[in-house]
Parts: sequence; C-alpha cells; structure tokens
Amino acid sequence: MAEAKQAPDAYDALLDHYETVSGLGDAAGVLSWDQEVMMPEGGNPARSKQKSAVSTVRHDLLTDEQVADWLDELDDADLTDEQESVVREIRRAHERAARVPSDLVAEISEKTSEAHPKWKEAREEDDFSIFAPVLEDLIELKKEYAEHIDPDADAYEVLFADYEPYLDLDTAERVLERLRDELVPLIEDIRDSDVELADPFDGEFDVDTQEDLARDVLDTLGYDWEHGRVDTAPHPFSSGTQFDARVTTRFDPEKPVDAFMSTIHEFGHARYTLGLPREQYGNPLGESRDLTVHESQSRLWENHVGRSRAFWETFLPEVKERFPQVEDATPEEAFEAANEIFEDNLIRVEADELTYHMHIVVRFEIERELIEGDLDVEDVPEAWNDKYEEYLGIRPENDAEGCLQDIHWSHGSFGYFPTYSLGSVLAAQIHAALEDDVGPVDERVREGDFDVVGDWLESNVHQHGARYTTPELVREATGEDFTADYFLDYVHEKYGELYDL
Amino acid sequence: MAEAKQAPDAYDALLDHYETVSGLGDAAGVLSWDQEVMMPEGGNPARSKQKSAVSTVRHDLLTDEQVADWLDELDDADLTDEQESVVREIRRAHERAARVPSDLVAEISEKTSEAHPKWKEAREEDDFSIFAPVLEDLIELKKEYAEHIDPDADAYEVLFADYEPYLDLDTAERVLERLRDELVPLIEDIRDSDVELADPFDGEFDVDTQEDLARDVLDTLGYDWEHGRVDTAPHPFSSGTQFDARVTTRFDPEKPVDAFMSTIHEFGHARYTLGLPREQYGNPLGESRDLTVHESQSRLWENHVGRSRAFWETFLPEVKERFPQVEDATPEEAFEAANEIFEDNLIRVEADELTYHMHIVVRFEIERELIEGDLDVEDVPEAWNDKYEEYLGIRPENDAEGCLQDIHWSHGSFGYFPTYSLGSVLAAQIHAALEDDVGPVDERVREGDFDVVGDWLESNVHQHGARYTTPELVREATGEDFTADYFLDYVHEKYGELYDL
Repeated sequence: MAEAKQAPDAYDALLDHYETVSGLGDAAGVLSWDQEVMMPEGGNPARSKQKSAVSTVRHDLLTDEQVADWLDELDDADLTDEQESVVREIRRAHERAARVPSDLVAEISEKTSEAHPKWKEAREEDDFSIFAPVLEDLIELKKEYAEHIDPDADAYEVLFADYEPYLDLDTAERVLERLRDELVPLIEDIRDSDVELADPFDGEFDVDTQEDLARDVLDTLGYDWEHGRVDTAPHPFSSGTQFDARVTTRFDPEKPVDAFMSTIHEFGHARYTLGLPREQYGNPLGESRDLTVHESQSRLWENHVGRSRAFWETFLPEVKERFPQVEDATPEEAFEAANEIFEDNLIRVEADELTYHMHIVVRFEIERELIEGDLDVEDVPEAWNDKYEEYLGIRPENDAEGCLQDIHWSHGSFGYFPTYSLGSVLAAQIHAALEDDVGPVDERVREGDFDVVGDWLESNVHQHGARYTTPELVREATGEDFTADYFLDYVHEKYGELYDL
Repeated sequence: MAEAKQAPDAYDALLDHYETVSGLGDAAGVLSWDQEVMMPEGGNPARSKQKSAVSTVRHDLLTDEQVADWLDELDDADLTDEQESVVREIRRAHERAARVPSDLVAEISEKTSEAHPKWKEAREEDDFSIFAPVLEDLIELKKEYAEHIDPDADAYEVLFADYEPYLDLDTAERVLERLRDELVPLIEDIRDSDVELADPFDGEFDVDTQEDLARDVLDTLGYDWEHGRVDTAPHPFSSGTQFDARVTTRFDPEKPVDAFMSTIHEFGHARYTLGLPREQYGNPLGESRDLTVHESQSRLWENHVGRSRAFWETFLPEVKERFPQVEDATPEEAFEAANEIFEDNLIRVEADELTYHMHIVVRFEIERELIEGDLDVEDVPEAWNDKYEEYLGIRPENDAEGCLQDIHWSHGSFGYFPTYSLGSVLAAQIHAALEDDVGPVDERVREGDFDVVGDWLESNVHQHGARYTTPELVREATGEDFTADYFLDYVHEKYGELYDL
C-alpha cells in the first residue's frame, strides 16, 4: 500500500473541482432516468433544455483552463499510486473534451437530435433511405471529432476509445475475429443437431406476476433495496451511483425467461455500481471502469449465474409459486429453456448468448468500414444482409429487421458495439478466476448463496473503481491478461453437452 | 401591444445566458422531485452532492460579472415592455444573489443541513431545546443575509421578499391583522353555534381506491396527463414546468376528503404551471409569479371550486362509484363535510379554510419578532401556545404539536408563511373577477364544465408569466388593487349560512 503523503494544493483543488463535474454528470443521469421511466411524454422540450444546460456547464468546467494549469502543476508532483490514477483519469477526460471545439460538440448534438426521429421513421416505414443522409452526416462529423482528438490515429480507434479507453482496438479486433472463426462453425453444428431443448415456459405469463417475480429474482440475488429500485422501461437499462443504483426491465407475456434474464443482467450492472467505494464518490476512484468491465459484470450474472443449472435448481420453486402453470417443469428443463440457441433470430436484443456475438461482429465490421470510408452508407443494407447470411445462415427480409434495428448509430455511437462482446468474454475469464479462488460457484448457488459471487466481485473488481486501467484491472482480478480462452472453452463445453456435439 | 423592435445584442446574450441558469434551476427541481417521490432512502449522500453541484454552478452563472455588464448596457436601452420585464426580473435575481457572499451562502446551506435532522429529532422527542441552538444560529445567519441584500431595510422585510418580492410587507401585515381581527370572532361564533355539520365520510376508505379517485378528480378538473403525473408523497407538493407539471398527494384511510382537497389544491398549482406560455420557456415571461400568486391558484381550485356545493353535485356520483359505502350521502352532506370547521385542531396542514389563517398569523407574528430581536428563541414555545389560546381558544399540550410541527424554519425559511394567507385572500379576489366576467361559476361546474375556470385563469393570470409584478398582475386580472374584501365577504357569507350565524 502506498504511504500517506500530503497531497499538493493543485491536487486538492483539482479534486474539489472534479467533484462538481462529477455531480453534474450524475445529475444528468437522474434527468435521463426520469425521462425514460417517469416523465410524461409532453415533457421532452423542457427536458432537452435542462439536459443541455447541465451538460454544457459540465463541459465548460471540465475543459476550464484552470484544470489544464492544475494538471501541468501535477506533472512532476510526488503522488501516491492512487493519486496518480485519479490524475490520469481526469487528465484523459479533460484532454479529450478540450480538444474538440465547442461548435463541433454542438453540431454533433444537433445532428443526433435530428437523426433519432429520422431513424425511428425509417424503421417504422422500413425505408433505409430516410435515415441514410443523416447517417452520412453523422459519420462525417464523428470523423472530424476523432481527427481533433488524435489526428495521427485511425478514426475508428479514437471513437472506440470513447467507450473502452484502455483495451486497444487490435485486441478487440483479434477477439472478435476469434469469436467469428470459432462460433460460426459451432452455431452450424447446433443447427445440424437433432437435439430439441425443452421449453416448459410455453403459453402466456401474466405481466404483473412477472413483475413480482422480477422482484423475487432481485431479492434472491441480494439486491440492496435501500440503495435501489426496479421499474419497467421499453429498453431495459440501469443507472445511478453507489448510493442509488436502479435497474429497469420489461415484460412480454410470451417470454418470461427473457424478463428474468434481462433483470439479472441489469442487476449485474447495478451490483457493480453499488460495489464502488462510497467514500470515493465524486472522484475516479469511486467511478466504474468503462463499458467492457461493466458488461462483464452484467454478463457474469446473466450467463454464468442465471443460465446455470444450479440457479434453476434454486430458483424454479419460486417461479412455480408465482406461476402454478409450470408446476411440472424440472430444473433441467428450465435450464434448457434458458439456453436455447435461436437459429432464426434476426434481432440482437433477443439473441441467445452464442449467436449474440455474430450480431456484434456484423455491426463491428460494418461501422469500421463506414468510418474508414471503405463502405458507402447506401450499401449498408446489402452488406448487413450478406453478413447475416454468411455468419448466421439467415437473411433479413427487410431493413427494419436488419440494419435499422439498433438505436446506436442514430446517437452517433460508433465503436460502442464491440464492448458488448468484449464484456461477455471478460465475464468468462473473471468467472474462472472466481472459481479458482472460492471453488465451484454452482455448489454455493445450489444452497442459495449468491453473496459468494457478489462479495468476490466487489473485492476484486468493484472496489477498485477506475484506479486501474482495463488491462491492469483484468490482471489484478484474474492474474492473467485479457483472453477469450475461457469464454470459448465455456461455450464449447456447455453447448457441446446441451446439443450432443 | 408593443411594437417589435430589434433587441440589443446585450439583451440576446443575457437571455441566452439566463436560459442556462433557468435550465439548471429546473434540473434541480427534477432532482428534488425524484428525491421526495422515487429515490431509495440510501441515495441521500449522493443526491446532496448532485444538488449542491447544480445549485453552485447556477449561482455562479447568475452572479457572473458578465451579467452585470449586460445589465449595465441595458440600463438606457430602448426596450419593449416585455423586454423591460425580462430585464427587471433577471436584474432582481442577479442583484440579490450577487450581494450575498458565497461563504455566507455555503454557511447557510450547511446550517440548514444540520438543522433539519435536529428539528426532526426535537419533534420526535418533543424537546424544543434540541432544536433551539441551531434555530438561533439560523436566525443570526439569515439576518446577516438580509443585511447584505439591503442594509437599510428591515431584515424581515428583506426575507419576506424572497418569497413575495412585490407585495410589500405593510400590505401583508395589514391583511393578516384584518384576518385576525375578523376571523377570531367568526371562529368564536362558530364554536358557540349549535349547528352540527353532516359527515357522510365516516369510517375507513381503502387507500388504493382513494388513489383511483384522486385520478378521477384530476380527470374531472381537466388535468393534462400528456404533461403531468400524480404520485404519493409524505408532504404533498407540485413541481415542474409548463411541459411537465406533476402533482403529489397522500392518503389517510380515515380522511378521504383531505385527500380530495389536497389533490385539488396541488392540481391548482400544476394548472398554473401548465398555463405558462410554452414558447417563453427558459426566460421570466415563461416563469410563474411568486408564492402569493401560486397559492392563489391552488386555493381558488381547492376552496372556490372543490369546497362548493356545485362541485359535490357533479362529483359525488364518482365518489359513490368508487366507494359504495357512501351510497346514501347527499351532495349537501358532502358539501358540509368538506367545509367543517375543526375547533380543536392544532395542526396547520390539517386545518380548515378559516382557522388556517390563525395558524399563519401565529407563525407570522412569532417569526417577525424573532428576526427583529423582540423574542428570544427559548421563549418561542410559550409565545406559540399563548397565541393559539388567544386566537383559536386551544392550547397545545406539547411542542411536537406546537411550535415544532412545521419544517419551514429548519430550512431557514422565515417570511414564507404569510404567502399562504395572502394567496387565499387573492384567490377570493380573482374568483370574484372571474364571475364578473363569465357569470356564476357554479352553474358551469354543475354541468361538469371546469374548463371555464382553467381557461379564464390561463388567459388572465398564467399566460402573463412573470411579465407583471404582483400588484400589476392583480390589477390586470381583477381590475382592482389587492384587497381582502372579497375573501372576508366570502367566508362571512359561506360560514354564516352553514353555521346559522
């Protein structure tokens, strides 16, 4: 442990200033949560202005010249390791924000406001040409944005770093290529297999009862209601701070398993947020590491806990109490239902844990080519459909179910998608390290002990906040460099057994 | 109407800047609403920092020297009447904020954070001495605050102007004295009367059904759900903007009439907010006039609509549909129940529309003496109890039901209470002007037409935003200066008839 040293005045001033920046960021998070979950529809015009006011002043504070001065002063200062980490994170946030001219920030913000309704309309009308012009503009603006941040780097690499700052793009690319190369044949084998998995969750499941069951799942996993709440939202998400981390979920009467899994997934995000050190609230040591690590936490709970046999042995009786209609189901059948591979599914957010990554690979390859200028916007639908055919053996019949299904590009988010797959891959690696440390998790889960997972993750991942970079955190938590080995072993073993391969 | 003129550059710059100030203020409003209505209890530490970040940057922007420069430039500028109003309001907000040193603002904020739990504890323990020291500190700090804003004025006058900037304290005092002088004998007469009003709402009323009924009331009054929502909160309030004005209410199984009235009251506030001009959102022309006018709107709906015979003729059938247990009640009986004078009630928020003002007079007289140094903090309980005995003929047996019942002083809010009574008085004056214009409102209400009230208030009060000062707005809406005549006529007539006086 680093020795306590007297922090330089510039450090204290910087931290004090950053606490306001951070408070504004979290305030914006509350405004967004409210907008998605509570706000009446007519509130939008005022809410946009409120959010814009908060983000403008946050940006002004973050890019203030005083911040640059403090950072300069701290260049050669004698700091503890923790202080060095704090300065590294603030410096990175400051420099990236300061390099982009305000006019361009405003222009991108306006363009995404314009893009969102165009995308919605295009999807409703199933007409990509409605969205194409504004998508083209957004690509140009984001390339310009990347150019300002780092004129020497590949534009896509710079954009990717907005979502995952410390795992370089080469790593991401290598992992995604490996997933493609190994999962495409596995999915083909599953398609060729004669095995039919059980599905005891056939029929209609009352939505209010599903909501009660979602609370049961959260209770079972150990969600801290003193610092959280659950609501429904059209697109489930979680948000908040270590004092107040909320989850949302959604229900479809015909897909109760989806709702469990989505709830467990969001629990994983919230559990990470709640595990951040409370006493560091307002500085990077109290902030989560970026999207890859966040997704690793949600996927670990969703896939390695929620999709396990042990989970269903423990939890199925609770399902039966709420839904006597599945009285005869066995834990093995429920386990199978939670792990079915959907061979004909075209929609990313409805995908199973295997084909999911092919959805990501398609998007990664296309957005990268778009940003690098190797693909024209007008050619996106065909490229999309060709890749679905190549990797998944299915071809969308229209763009609404094809390249118009996701909201991300209309937000100008290019480089976000890969973190979904990187997170799943990391989840398997962290799960292996957890078992290395505490023994087989299934045995504990069978006894209803989920704290073994939550507590270990809190000590080994959450408590570090953003102290370590992503590669450092992976090494700290698992003792190894980031690798897809564990994920691939896990899926080969699990699906090999399930589908008799 | 003023001719369109080219606005000076300083005006446009000021307006642009103020839009951010205003957006931050409304963002803080969302944070508070969420804290009261949705936030899990453990979220408080983070929420305090988020609110403090937003209010600090808002204060910094409002007191910015640039604002002073723009205001100076606009001193002799050729402005339209509307522009003059905008500048008047921004100048006032800027000057008051700029005159108070930041250190003092922070000190008051810290002291109120300390005062709130002390007040709660004192109330729970029924021990005023727990609260007394911090109350004393707060009084000193607020006197200092007033001294900075206007060293030549009476401190209480300056504090009062935080809540009601344009009706001078003399007017307030004159009105409150008149209420005291005329209502004390009226309440005595009622106490001496043999009349017993009917109460068909005896028994227990299911709280969930009461909540459905609250929605019915809001539907009946014409609440715009596209721009609002209703939730429960321990202390009912309303907040928001013309795009999203929310109400809260609360339910007691034994007091269904209280819940109706509280819901109608909060509807009145929200209806005002929703009637502000949307195209002026973000500047004073789109903001409400202060607390007196706001309270006049809630009281007009609550007292002049909700407590009328006509309302119960229209609405009682809806109550019976939800609560068959009151099937035999007549509209006259319901009207009586809504207008009962509670002779033994010690609690302000549970008071009827008559004794309510005596609760206010007690607080006004005491807080004024406290600020002026004519009363020591330690003597507050006795002064309080003596005044209750004098004005209401009842004496609190303990301080929890006496001088510790209200939260306001723990917030450092001295000068707030009088606006409650001023608002009720103004409600009667505005209601008289409305009837002068459209004829007897009861006849329309009996036909279920509540828009006649909402539309008239929107045109004659809401649409003006903060364009006029309070006295100007009163003249604009009623053709007369602010007066208590209408209120006193109204209560003498109504309660004279009800209690056979």
